[in-house]
Amino acid sequence: MSDKPRLLSYTRQQLMGLPKQQRIMFLNSLSGFKAAWLLGSKSSTGISNLCVVNSVMHVGASPPLMGLLFRPKTSHHQTQPNIEETGVFTVNLIEASYLKEAHQTAATYGPETSEFTTCGFTEQYLEEFEAPFVQEARIKVGLKLEEMHKVKANGTTFLVASVQHVCFPAVAVGGNGSLNPTKIGGVASVGLTDYYTGIFHSREDYKED
Amino acid sequence: MSDKPRLLSYTRQQLMGLPKQQRIMFLNSLSGFKAAWLLGSKSSTGISNLCVVNSVMHVGASPPLMGLLFRPKTSHHQTQPNIEETGVFTVNLIEASYLKEAHQTAATYGPETSEFTTCGFTEQYLEEFEAPFVQEARIKVGLKLEEMHKVKANGTTFLVASVQHVCFPAVAVGGNGSLNPTKIGGVASVGLTDYYTGIFHSREDYKED
Repeated sequence: MSDKPRLLSYTRQQLMGLPKQQRIMFLNSLSGFKAAWLLGSKSSTGISNLCVVNSVMHVGASPPLMGLLFRPKTSHHQTQPNIEETGVFTVNLIEASYLKEAHQTAATYGPETSEFTTCGFTEQYLEEFEAPFVQEARIKVGLKLEEMHKVKANGTTFLVASVQHVCFPAVAVGGNGSLNPTKIGGVASVGLTDYYTGIFHSREDYKED
Repeated sequence: MSDKPRLLSYTRQQLMGLPKQQRIMFLNSLSGFKAAWLLGSKSSTGISNLCVVNSVMHVGASPPLMGLLFRPKTSHHQTQPNIEETGVFTVNLIEASYLKEAHQTAATYGPETSEFTTCGFTEQYLEEFEAPFVQEARIKVGLKLEEMHKVKANGTTFLVASVQHVCFPAVAVGGNGSLNPTKIGGVASVGLTDYYTGIFHSREDYKED
């Protein structure tokens, strides 16, 4: 099936014994490819906020739901409070053409600073939806907060939101209704620093579930 | 920044009005690239089980935690009960070389049938860990159930598990400690049918968070 490269193995104890930075880089990357998004939100006082997230996941199609995870302590201090205050936010799929600007939103800025301005993105508002979309993005989703679940083990929050609006280019949807992120140069992140683009590999049979 | 293709837009009402199959394919693919894994588990009566999952996510590095989402009704009826009974399971990153066999585990088999046998994979047991790893996989994680959170909106379960064992080839770890799934042909799934491989795009600055 493949040549056999040298396989390494860590137990839990060995993982915990790694130097902190090495452990963080390794474990953040262990979950592999994840779509990279810009999350747009706005405070109750009207200051917009933008940050990179890579934990957006499908939760359900009926009703349409997405989920994402928030760290307990994050440099994006404004995002979670904004979502709790206003109940709405957007996720905008990052494209390779503006990845560097998008990744810059992960730097630390003060609560009075909008990363839209600092990092060169344009706020866009659609159909009276209060949260800002990213004009430059082509696949974007307007979401409404539905549930928050606190993870006891480390204080992260699993947030569930309902899909209120979706924008996408017609060219990105295939014949079977599935989006193809490579049509717009959508990127995937692995860990905290590395980004990948995709190549279509294959379409397999649909299995009911 | 790019040519402007035709942009489409759905409101929540329009999404809900789509034909069921189209809505399912669209919404399952909307969250974009997600690493594809084989989840290995075993019943309390000793029958092993294997199924494709694509909702594995990073939850934390200290302690090492991963999360994943289970649908309320799934063809993989055995997986969630197995995890609840035994408290342990494995996730094994799918490689392009055996993707077709891996995707076949998503078909419906009876509770007495092991997808290991049916789909041509080999059970592997490591250091007294009760759940089966996939011998053919090179990045694999042994996990212990820690928490289950029920999503009220649709009955899915967000499960949090602690990392007990990790196996990986030395060649897949870069200089900064991050795994590179392309080194072993790791695949990403989009939606229910489509698989992609990755191309390294860029390494951006590390931002503390």
